[in-house]
Amino acid sequence: MNAPTAAHHLTPALQLRPVPAEFLAALQTRFGAQCSVAQVVREQHGRDESIFEVPPPAAVVFAENTQDVADAVKLCAQHQVPVIPFGVGSSLEGHLLAVQGGISLDVSRMNRVLAINAEDLTVTVQPGVTRKQLNEAVKDQGLFFPIDPGADASLGGMTATRASGTNAVRYGTMRENVLALEVVTAAGEVIRTGTRAKKSSAGYDLTRLMVGSEGTLGVITEISLKLYPLPEAISAAICSFPTIEAAVRTVIQIIQLGVPIARCELIDAGTVRVVNAHSKLGLREEHMLLMEFHGSPAGVKEQAETVQEIATDFGGNAFEWATTPEERTRLWTARHNAYFAAIQSKPGCRAVSTDTCVPISKLADCLLDSVAEADASGLPYFLVGHVGDGNFHFGYLIDPAKPEEHRVAEALNHQLVARALRLQGTCTGEHGVGLHKMDFLRTEAGDGAVAMMRAIKQALDPDNILNPGKIFAL
Amino acid sequence: MNAPTAAHHLTPALQLRPVPAEFLAALQTRFGAQCSVAQVVREQHGRDESIFEVPPPAAVVFAENTQDVADAVKLCAQHQVPVIPFGVGSSLEGHLLAVQGGISLDVSRMNRVLAINAEDLTVTVQPGVTRKQLNEAVKDQGLFFPIDPGADASLGGMTATRASGTNAVRYGTMRENVLALEVVTAAGEVIRTGTRAKKSSAGYDLTRLMVGSEGTLGVITEISLKLYPLPEAISAAICSFPTIEAAVRTVIQIIQLGVPIARCELIDAGTVRVVNAHSKLGLREEHMLLMEFHGSPAGVKEQAETVQEIATDFGGNAFEWATTPEERTRLWTARHNAYFAAIQSKPGCRAVSTDTCVPISKLADCLLDSVAEADASGLPYFLVGHVGDGNFHFGYLIDPAKPEEHRVAEALNHQLVARALRLQGTCTGEHGVGLHKMDFLRTEAGDGAVAMMRAIKQALDPDNILNPGKIFAL
Repeated sequence: MNAPTAAHHLTPALQLRPVPAEFLAALQTRFGAQCSVAQVVREQHGRDESIFEVPPPAAVVFAENTQDVADAVKLCAQHQVPVIPFGVGSSLEGHLLAVQGGISLDVSRMNRVLAINAEDLTVTVQPGVTRKQLNEAVKDQGLFFPIDPGADASLGGMTATRASGTNAVRYGTMRENVLALEVVTAAGEVIRTGTRAKKSSAGYDLTRLMVGSEGTLGVITEISLKLYPLPEAISAAICSFPTIEAAVRTVIQIIQLGVPIARCELIDAGTVRVVNAHSKLGLREEHMLLMEFHGSPAGVKEQAETVQEIATDFGGNAFEWATTPEERTRLWTARHNAYFAAIQSKPGCRAVSTDTCVPISKLADCLLDSVAEADASGLPYFLVGHVGDGNFHFGYLIDPAKPEEHRVAEALNHQLVARALRLQGTCTGEHGVGLHKMDFLRTEAGDGAVAMMRAIKQALDPDNILNPGKIFAL
Repeated sequence: MNAPTAAHHLTPALQLRPVPAEFLAALQTRFGAQCSVAQVVREQHGRDESIFEVPPPAAVVFAENTQDVADAVKLCAQHQVPVIPFGVGSSLEGHLLAVQGGISLDVSRMNRVLAINAEDLTVTVQPGVTRKQLNEAVKDQGLFFPIDPGADASLGGMTATRASGTNAVRYGTMRENVLALEVVTAAGEVIRTGTRAKKSSAGYDLTRLMVGSEGTLGVITEISLKLYPLPEAISAAICSFPTIEAAVRTVIQIIQLGVPIARCELIDAGTVRVVNAHSKLGLREEHMLLMEFHGSPAGVKEQAETVQEIATDFGGNAFEWATTPEERTRLWTARHNAYFAAIQSKPGCRAVSTDTCVPISKLADCLLDSVAEADASGLPYFLVGHVGDGNFHFGYLIDPAKPEEHRVAEALNHQLVARALRLQGTCTGEHGVGLHKMDFLRTEAGDGAVAMMRAIKQALDPDNILNPGKIFAL
C-alpha cells in the first residue's frame, strides 16, 4: 500500500476470487518476461488517481499485440480469473482496482499508430497510444484529434471511459469520435465493430456499447478515430468575472446563441490562486473563463467579437488574447495543471472529484448552490469545468487520515449529484462510474435500466471475468 | 395482398408463430376500439416501402400512451406473440413485416411534442411525431431539427433505424442527435436511458444500443433530441458536371478541406430527367450536386466561394443559387421526389434500393464501377446520394412480375456491397438491415460480432417477441 495511514473507509468492499497457482504458471509459460509478479509492478497497476486503497492484482501481463490479449483473456476465462485492462493509470474512479482480485492486462506497449487515412480524416491506433502521441503523429498531415481530458491518457482508456474534456463542446466526446473497434471478448475471441464509413445502420451499435463500458464487456485492441483538419486560425482568450454567476451566465448565452466555441472552461478564483502558486503564471486571481476559437480567420474573429460582447454585458473584463501557440500552451497548461496544483496545495491530500453534467440552462442553478455548500463546509477545494457542456468538477481536498474530511466530501458530492439529477443531468459527464458512482448510477438510471445493463454484461461475460465489480454490483 | 402478380421470390422465409384466440380476446378487452383486426387495417400495417410480400399481422393496436404500449407488450409477452412497432410505414427494408406473425403496434397516435427546452436546444417528443411536425413545432423558437431522410418519417422510426439523410454531413445522424429515450422492454417494463445532459459516462450507452435496433430490443415511447438554432443565413446551390466522376471528385475535396457544408447531394443525369418529368422543374439534365450552406452571412459566403472554386476546378458549371426559402424548397422537393418520380417512370415497378456508405476517399472507386455495372445490366435505375458522407443509393426499378429483373437487381446490389466492404465501408448507411441485408450484415460484421448482437437480443428479449426475424436470423 502506498498510504499506510489510509483510513479503513477508503477501502471498498472486496470480494477476492481465487487465482490458482496453475493459472499463474500457465500465464508465465505463455508470457515469460511479459508477465510480472513483482510487488512494485503489481502495486503500480493496483491503483489509479482515485482515493481507494485495494490490494494489487496477482500479476501483470504486458500485452504487445492482439494475440497476446486474446491469449491472456482465454487463460483467465479457463480459470475464471478477473482481468483488468490497464492503459496509463490516469482514471479517477477506481476503474483499475482489483476489487475481485485477478490480473492487470497492461496494453501500454500496444502503442503503434497503425494507419493514418488523412484523406478520410480517420486514424487507426492501438489502445496504448496516448492522445499526445497521436497528435504528434498526425500534425504533419495538418490534422489533429481534439478530445483532451487533460491527462495524457491512453486512447484505449479514453474509449473505455467515454472521455471528453476541453474541446468536447465543439467536437463531441469519445462517443462521437470512435468509428470502429477491434475487441477481444470474454471468451478471448477477436471481433470487429463498425467500419471506417462515417455512418452506418448495420445492426446494433456495438461500437457505442463498448465505448464507456469501462473494460467490463471486452478488451479494446484497436481503435479507429475521427480526425479534424487543424484549424486555419486559432485564438484563445481569458476573461475575468466579478462573480461565478456572471461567468456562468456568459457561457449559457454563448451556447444558446450557437457560437461554435471550441473550448469554454471555468476556473474559480481560488483555483486560479493555486495554479498561480504552482506554475508562476501571474494570472489575475479572479473567476475566469478560458476560451478557444477555431475556424477561418474571419470566422474566429466573428466568434470572438460575439463572445466579447456577451461577456462585457455580464461584467466580464480584462480580456487577454493569446494567438501564438506559445501563449496558448501557457494558458492550457495552467488549466491542465489545476488538478496537480490543487493536490500540491495541501500536502498529502487526495482529491474527491465530482463530475456532474446538466443541461446548459440549469448550469447556474447547479453550480452556484454547490459552491455555497462547499464554501460552508470549510473543506478546501478546486473548481474547474467544461462549462460549455454543462459539466464541471469540484475536487474536495481531503486528508486520507481524517475520515471526517472524507465523510464531508462525500456528503457534498451526494448533495451535488442529487441536485444535478433533479435538474435532468447526470452524475458523471466524463469520468465514468467505476467504483465510486455505482449508487449514483442506480439513482440516475433507475433499477430497470441498470438491470438491462447487468443482463447485457451477463450475456457477454457469463463468468464475470472482465473488470468485475465496476459500474454495478455483480 | 396489394400485388397479386408478385413473384414467389419476393416472399422471404416465413416462420409464423401461433396467435392464440385468448390472446386476441384479451387484447380486444383491454384496447376496445384501439384494436383492429380489419383486413384493410392489417394489410396497411403489413407492408412498407420494401419489395417483400408477407401476410399481414393478426391485429393492429393503436397505442395512445406509454401505458398502452406497456400493456400491449405485456400481453404479447404472456402469450409469446410477436409485436412489431409501427410509425408511418416508410421504412425500406422490410422492418415492419410480420415474418413470424404477431401484431402491429401502431404508435402514430402518440404524436405529442412533450417539452421544448429552447434554452437547452433540446426537445422531447412521443415516437409518432414526424420530422415535419417537429420542425413546425419548434420554428417559432428559432430552432430546427436537421435530420431529414426525405420521407416525413416518424421520429420513433427514425430512431429505430438510425436514420440520417441530407444534412447528416454537418449535423450527424440519429446516433448523434438522440439524447435520451423512454423504452418499453420485452417484459413490458418502462425504462429510461440517458438524460438531457449533453454528455455522460454513466454506464452502458443504452440509448445508442436502442438507436438502430429496429424494434428488436424495446419499443421506443419517448425521445429527447438535440435541436439547433436556425442558421442566420442559408444558401443553396446547384452545380452541373460533365461526368459523375467530376462531381464526386468535387465532393471529396470539399469534405477533405473541412468545409462545414450542410447538405451535399448527388443526382445523376438520368434521375434529373425523371425528376423533371415528374415535377416540371426545368433543371439542366446533367449530373448535378445540390448543396446547402448554413452559418452567418459571412460564413456562408466564405463556404460558397470555396466550393465554387473547387467545383470550377473539376469542370463544374452553371452554378445556380437559391437564397429565398421558396427557391430552396423547390430544389429540395426535387431531391425528395426523386424516389417517387423514378417509381412512376416505370408503371407498376418496385425499387430495389442500395445503401452502401464508404470512407470519402473511396467514394469515386465505389460509385463509378457500380454505375458501369448498372448501365451494363440494362435495368432502369435512379441514383441519388448523400455523397458528402460517402453514402449513395441506387434504386433498381424492377417489374415484380419478372423474377429475372429481381435477380439482376439483387446481383448488382451484391456486387456493390462486396465492393463497399472491400473499401472499408458498410452495406447500409441509413436504411437499416431489416429483412433485406441480413446476409450482408454477416459478411460485414463477421460471425463473432453478429453472435454478440444475438446474445444481447437473447438477454433482453428471451422469448424473441420484439420484431423477431429482423437484423439476424433468430
